[in-house]
Amino acid sequence: MFAARGYPDSVRDAYQDKLDQLAISLASACELVADALDKATQALLHADLQLAEQVISDDARVDDFRAAAEEQVFALLALQAPVATDLRIVLSGLHAAMAIERMGDLAEHIATTARRRHPHPVLPAEVAPYVAEMGRIGSSLARGAAEVIQTRDLTRAGQLEADDDAMDDLHRHLFTVLTAPSWDHGVAPAVDITLIGRFYERYADHAVALARRVVYIVTGRMPRPLVP
Amino acid sequence: MFAARGYPDSVRDAYQDKLDQLAISLASACELVADALDKATQALLHADLQLAEQVISDDARVDDFRAAAEEQVFALLALQAPVATDLRIVLSGLHAAMAIERMGDLAEHIATTARRRHPHPVLPAEVAPYVAEMGRIGSSLARGAAEVIQTRDLTRAGQLEADDDAMDDLHRHLFTVLTAPSWDHGVAPAVDITLIGRFYERYADHAVALARRVVYIVTGRMPRPLVP
Repeated sequence: MFAARGYPDSVRDAYQDKLDQLAISLASACELVADALDKATQALLHADLQLAEQVISDDARVDDFRAAAEEQVFALLALQAPVATDLRIVLSGLHAAMAIERMGDLAEHIATTARRRHPHPVLPAEVAPYVAEMGRIGSSLARGAAEVIQTRDLTRAGQLEADDDAMDDLHRHLFTVLTAPSWDHGVAPAVDITLIGRFYERYADHAVALARRVVYIVTGRMPRPLVP
Repeated sequence: MFAARGYPDSVRDAYQDKLDQLAISLASACELVADALDKATQALLHADLQLAEQVISDDARVDDFRAAAEEQVFALLALQAPVATDLRIVLSGLHAAMAIERMGDLAEHIATTARRRHPHPVLPAEVAPYVAEMGRIGSSLARGAAEVIQTRDLTRAGQLEADDDAMDDLHRHLFTVLTAPSWDHGVAPAVDITLIGRFYERYADHAVALARRVVYIVTGRMPRPLVP
């Protein structure tokens, strides 16, 4: 499906190599933002300032990656001017890079909240288990997206949709806890947790959108809206 | 700067026409999401269910637009295989289309909040003026982005940055109101308003990112991060 018909073998090989490299970079960047989310969640759960600072300073690497991935896409387009499916594959690399940068930003926002409240914990005890689980699902979705990018496994892509539904359920449940009559922590922690919940949910949406773009490329059919 | 050197005049003219059409579509879509935000803000301020429903159902038009803009970009790439600056211009159309779709989604989220709480107003009286102003700035940013896309006016693009700073100030002030000791509306409205504030702020970020991409294309230099 990647074969560049009508081009000499040397160009086709160079093109295929660059395309493989792009997929590898995208998958590594997914791992990077999965680690960032894990650390941000730990920083939040344990009011760990050092870990929060690390996530915040490491985000520059994710931003650099996005710029590098854009250059890889430009190089691919300049090398061969792909059309049809090949063109969609290359351009999906651009979308993927932006989604991954955004996931890194969201992990950074979570770390920033932990830093802003330090040394106080952001999460009351009854909320912590939900946030821990949202963190676990979020980083597992990012690692799943890395797998889907490299393997183009549609079954695995389908599993990500189910995990995202679990994230949405947790997100809704979080609001139930915040607005229950038993909530006695006041408005300020509720505002923090509302935003944090939103950050995890958006992170998951972007990971699923990555997987959907792969499904689109493999099947030619978009399972659900493209933009998360 | 758009001239397609090395191509026959007929191809160059067809290319230029398609590029102009893409800019016009993008600018119209900015107007569309500006109207959507104005209506969503009115729906929120006046608990107007009919207006909220209209924003929600109209959002499908914005989504269709994104798909159509992607097709226009593919047609441009297939027609001429642009390189260098021309390539960046065409690909920025792809980014712009996604940003505009996202702005439409955010306006829809605001309308959905108004619908969910109907017939109760979402906003206590002391918050309404801030939200009204965020709505005004947001839609004015979208209309400004439309102008920048069509005129490539860098001074106008710079004004959008200042308006976005005003939006950020309002957003911060909203949190001050929510977490002040005088806040006596409880947690549930605070949760709604936290999310609404975030939706306006993100909407503005996307409008400014659109203008920044135009600055990037015109000057070759990116003023601030690309991804909002």
